[in-house]
Amino acid sequence: MSIVQCVPNFSEGMNQEVVEKIVEAIRSVEGIKVLDYSSDKDHNRTVVTLVGSKEKIVEGVFQGAKKAAELIDMTTHKGEHPRMGATDVIPFIPIKDVTMEECIDLARTLGQRIGEELKIPVYLYEKAASATHRTNLAKVRKGEYEGLQEKMQEDKWKPDYGPSAFNPKSGATAVGARMPLVAFNVNLDTNNIDIANKIAKNVRHAGGGLHSVKAMGVELKERGIVQISMNMVDYKKTPLYRAKELIKVEAQRYGVSVIGSEVIGLVPMDALIETVDYYLGLEEFKKDQILENRLFQG
Amino acid sequence: MSIVQCVPNFSEGMNQEVVEKIVEAIRSVEGIKVLDYSSDKDHNRTVVTLVGSKEKIVEGVFQGAKKAAELIDMTTHKGEHPRMGATDVIPFIPIKDVTMEECIDLARTLGQRIGEELKIPVYLYEKAASATHRTNLAKVRKGEYEGLQEKMQEDKWKPDYGPSAFNPKSGATAVGARMPLVAFNVNLDTNNIDIANKIAKNVRHAGGGLHSVKAMGVELKERGIVQISMNMVDYKKTPLYRAKELIKVEAQRYGVSVIGSEVIGLVPMDALIETVDYYLGLEEFKKDQILENRLFQG
Repeated sequence: MSIVQCVPNFSEGMNQEVVEKIVEAIRSVEGIKVLDYSSDKDHNRTVVTLVGSKEKIVEGVFQGAKKAAELIDMTTHKGEHPRMGATDVIPFIPIKDVTMEECIDLARTLGQRIGEELKIPVYLYEKAASATHRTNLAKVRKGEYEGLQEKMQEDKWKPDYGPSAFNPKSGATAVGARMPLVAFNVNLDTNNIDIANKIAKNVRHAGGGLHSVKAMGVELKERGIVQISMNMVDYKKTPLYRAKELIKVEAQRYGVSVIGSEVIGLVPMDALIETVDYYLGLEEFKKDQILENRLFQG
Repeated sequence: MSIVQCVPNFSEGMNQEVVEKIVEAIRSVEGIKVLDYSSDKDHNRTVVTLVGSKEKIVEGVFQGAKKAAELIDMTTHKGEHPRMGATDVIPFIPIKDVTMEECIDLARTLGQRIGEELKIPVYLYEKAASATHRTNLAKVRKGEYEGLQEKMQEDKWKPDYGPSAFNPKSGATAVGARMPLVAFNVNLDTNNIDIANKIAKNVRHAGGGLHSVKAMGVELKERGIVQISMNMVDYKKTPLYRAKELIKVEAQRYGVSVIGSEVIGLVPMDALIETVDYYLGLEEFKKDQILENRLFQG
């Protein structure tokens, strides 16, 4: 069975009754499992994590977006987090037995439904973007809800789906596809934050380092050590082991050692298997050799 | 959801119709999944691999044993593999969210049902054994079907469940609990089988090496290399990484390197996670951080 993850962000984080109704609408779809949801009052925003097969996931998140369109009024919304719509962003994330291409198709299918059935303008973003300048979510959302009516008039920012007219109550929704993000931190046996910052700079993509890695140095004051805190934004391009081993190599020049690591939050099994595969030097290991993977097939 | 694996062996490997009926009886139980079954004509024996939750697994394998009691007649059975009953052995194997203690309970529950409902003598073995001398399956089965009637008269070999009288049609069944076996081979960059044999001897438990590891040297003639072929009979006692790293250390004295490895057949996810955990030096990683593990809970 395929597994697609979806992490819709809704512009309501204060009224718990509204939040529960949106989550309930998602849960009401058979085959959908809500793994987590959390609201932030200052951001006035709720992030829901759900999973389902590629056949079911669109219906699940659509029901959430429909309920949000009904219950959230953007004309009175205030919050610290940038936002442009009642359902603000919806990324689809491939987890198991589903390709990125298929997740892009899911984004398009959902975008079209939100546009046509809910009359909400939709922008495709990240891997699903219809043009390069729409890849980056921050750019798509720039100007936020307050600037949307004007922005939509520009040719460059015509919505991908839905009405070309502004929808005051619901704003607009960004629907996209991206790889799962793995939060991976590597600990060093020094309290020197300068060393951590130098290593982080050499390891991260922006510094000339590894593809799809964001990294920064962090002090763990209680433990008296420092850490390279990373976001692995595409574990297929750069697996966990490569980041850890490169940090080890970079740390050597300072006489510093890696003393441990941590994975924060959820990680797809695949990301760990890539790492077993490397360290054991497995030849031709197939994922369906993992007993659990055989269990939920067909 | 818990996952228990069960690998019953039936004394029929020639009559495919009988084999299919036994497998069908197992499959007819809701919640049971038959992952694999294969028959050997020389052994005149079929090995079925099924999985199910701890609530369902006993019913699944019981239905198979019941059908085997109906369709297999041990009075006429011939085959190269040692055997003492129509359903010869039934090991329960903990895979996920289930303890060895619980698997021992499953063995007892099933043993009692087979004894009472099918009137077949049952011996508990391995981790489920009711006495030390019954732990080893080869000893329980010694004398085979032909010697069973006499063996059952000895106080030492009174069955754990079922009639104390010999059942000529069905013989006896051994029901037990054990850890999953992982077939793990490590390849070396030499064609010298003596080196492989020496390393295998130092690594395996019988040679003073690692607990729960069976190992032997094997030539891969086509590739011109040798291999340490291992059965990891308890990956919690000796994880895969430890065997690989010890082979690396032992190989060094011969100037030989590890050039790869392979896992043959099925492996529980847990056995791979132990290995990721070691190589990344993960601190406090919890298995429910693996997204797939969250999916099938509750």
